[in-house]
Amino acid sequence: MAVKVHPQGLCESDEVGDGTRVWAFAHVLKGAVVGKDCNICDCAFIEDGAVLGDRVTVKNAVLVWRGVTVGDDVFLGPNVLFTNDLRPRSGTAFSADDVVPTTVRNGASLGAGVVVVCGTEIGEYAFAGAGAVITRDVAPHSFVAGNPAVHKGWVGRCGARLTADDAGVWRCAECDESYELDDSSGRLRPKSA
Amino acid sequence: MAVKVHPQGLCESDEVGDGTRVWAFAHVLKGAVVGKDCNICDCAFIEDGAVLGDRVTVKNAVLVWRGVTVGDDVFLGPNVLFTNDLRPRSGTAFSADDVVPTTVRNGASLGAGVVVVCGTEIGEYAFAGAGAVITRDVAPHSFVAGNPAVHKGWVGRCGARLTADDAGVWRCAECDESYELDDSSGRLRPKSA
Amino acid sequence: MAVKVHPQGLCESDEVGDGTRVWAFAHVLKGAVVGKDCNICDCAFIEDGAVLGDRVTVKNAVLVWRGVTVGDDVFLGPNVLFTNDLRPRSGTAFSADDVVPTTVRNGASLGAGVVVVCGTEIGEYAFAGAGAVITRDVAPHSFVAGNPAVHKGWVGRCGARLTADDAGVWRCAECDESYELDDSSGRLRPKSA
Repeated sequence: MAVKVHPQGLCESDEVGDGTRVWAFAHVLKGAVVGKDCNICDCAFIEDGAVLGDRVTVKNAVLVWRGVTVGDDVFLGPNVLFTNDLRPRSGTAFSADDVVPTTVRNGASLGAGVVVVCGTEIGEYAFAGAGAVITRDVAPHSFVAGNPAVHKGWVGRCGARLTADDAGVWRCAECDESYELDDSSGRLRPKSA
Repeated sequence: MAVKVHPQGLCESDEVGDGTRVWAFAHVLKGAVVGKDCNICDCAFIEDGAVLGDRVTVKNAVLVWRGVTVGDDVFLGPNVLFTNDLRPRSGTAFSADDVVPTTVRNGASLGAGVVVVCGTEIGEYAFAGAGAVITRDVAPHSFVAGNPAVHKGWVGRCGARLTADDAGVWRCAECDESYELDDSSGRLRPKSA
Repeated sequence: MAVKVHPQGLCESDEVGDGTRVWAFAHVLKGAVVGKDCNICDCAFIEDGAVLGDRVTVKNAVLVWRGVTVGDDVFLGPNVLFTNDLRPRSGTAFSADDVVPTTVRNGASLGAGVVVVCGTEIGEYAFAGAGAVITRDVAPHSFVAGNPAVHKGWVGRCGARLTADDAGVWRCAECDESYELDDSSGRLRPKSA
């Protein structure tokens, strides 16, 4: 159950958890921290200073830079792009102090080709549709899409859309989960019993 | 005229047609079906279960998953992304039964960076502009652009925009082709003689 | 100070300047012209006929085709995509005469995932936000974003947004630079003393 690296993959970090696989043409730099049982697909790139939790799916060509922290059970779809600099200029000194952090919370999913502008937080079980360009925080369980990404609805843990019943309870037809909106924060939370 | 694979490319499939070329850092998995005379450029990835026709251009970094069927003479521009799962969650079992299929018909072109949400069909000679995010079916000969992609006009086989004459016949100024709209389906079809 | 190529990188051009680095799985084709002190990151691709100036940052997976000319001190963010054909069709002959050129002027920055439709010029110190799809010229110092990209404001050499004072002078709070709008062209220019 050690780290499994494809003969054409590069894993230079010694902080990668057991059971994680690194596929062809992927590159995990020395200093990158990756949890257990992750799947890092072809051409993905994990920079030193990036931190990934356990059971993260990193599809092909995903790029994760220093300053990006990804929780457990996150799905990063093909070609998901992070950033860590709000005003890049070539030739300008860029030090660790200049890095703008980004956080992806447990269980979130970013679809194919999603671009994440740095300085944002993507909440637990949030879901960004394919091609979304995320320019501000995404609330937990929020489904966002578009360029720039905007809130389009709510999803449950399984990823299915939630619908509100007459009592204002948000329910998943597939999972028997229920949630309610917190009026003060505008955020969804598991319904109290 | 056998398959030509770059020394840094990986072609593990034995179902690739004669004359097809696989370039550096591209990866064709065992079980992928690829026709004759295709050009699979650097960092492209063709998964097992994907099916490509003949003379398909697969530019750099294109990602084609199982469930995606591409016809003949299709142009897949750089970084074209497909998907095969409408609600990906890391750690969730994903079996062949869960794959949502996508079809690209003969002669269609997808521009640079196009993202295709699964479950869609892209018609013959359709054309998606660079950066389009396709979320629903694209009619034959339709030109679409934007996020989400919407219909912007009609194109001919050569890719040039068509214009309607006074009699409502859609003509290509460059190719001497003519088309007419089918009122019931809203689709373009070659003009009957 | 010769060119430094990673063991897994490919640099086939003999027209690459001193101090330039080519990283893993990047590919610089024979005939590509690259200046001094550039940084060409993993999975980037520079085609023959492409021209890059000095001190260009080419982040991971950037694709630069023949017909694209990039000035000095340009920042090309991760996954920036160029194009050189307005109506690609597979199987159609595509010769040097068909290439539609694109120019990026000195000091410009293109953010993560920016797609550039060919035939455009991106002016000096222009700045395209992450995920922008550029379909027409971008004026010098213009900040653009969206799909398609539209003008959102002005930025200085350092990349910070400029604000207009009561006299209509556009100033950078961080750099003590000042600019004025040229009424006839609608373009920003350094303020005359």
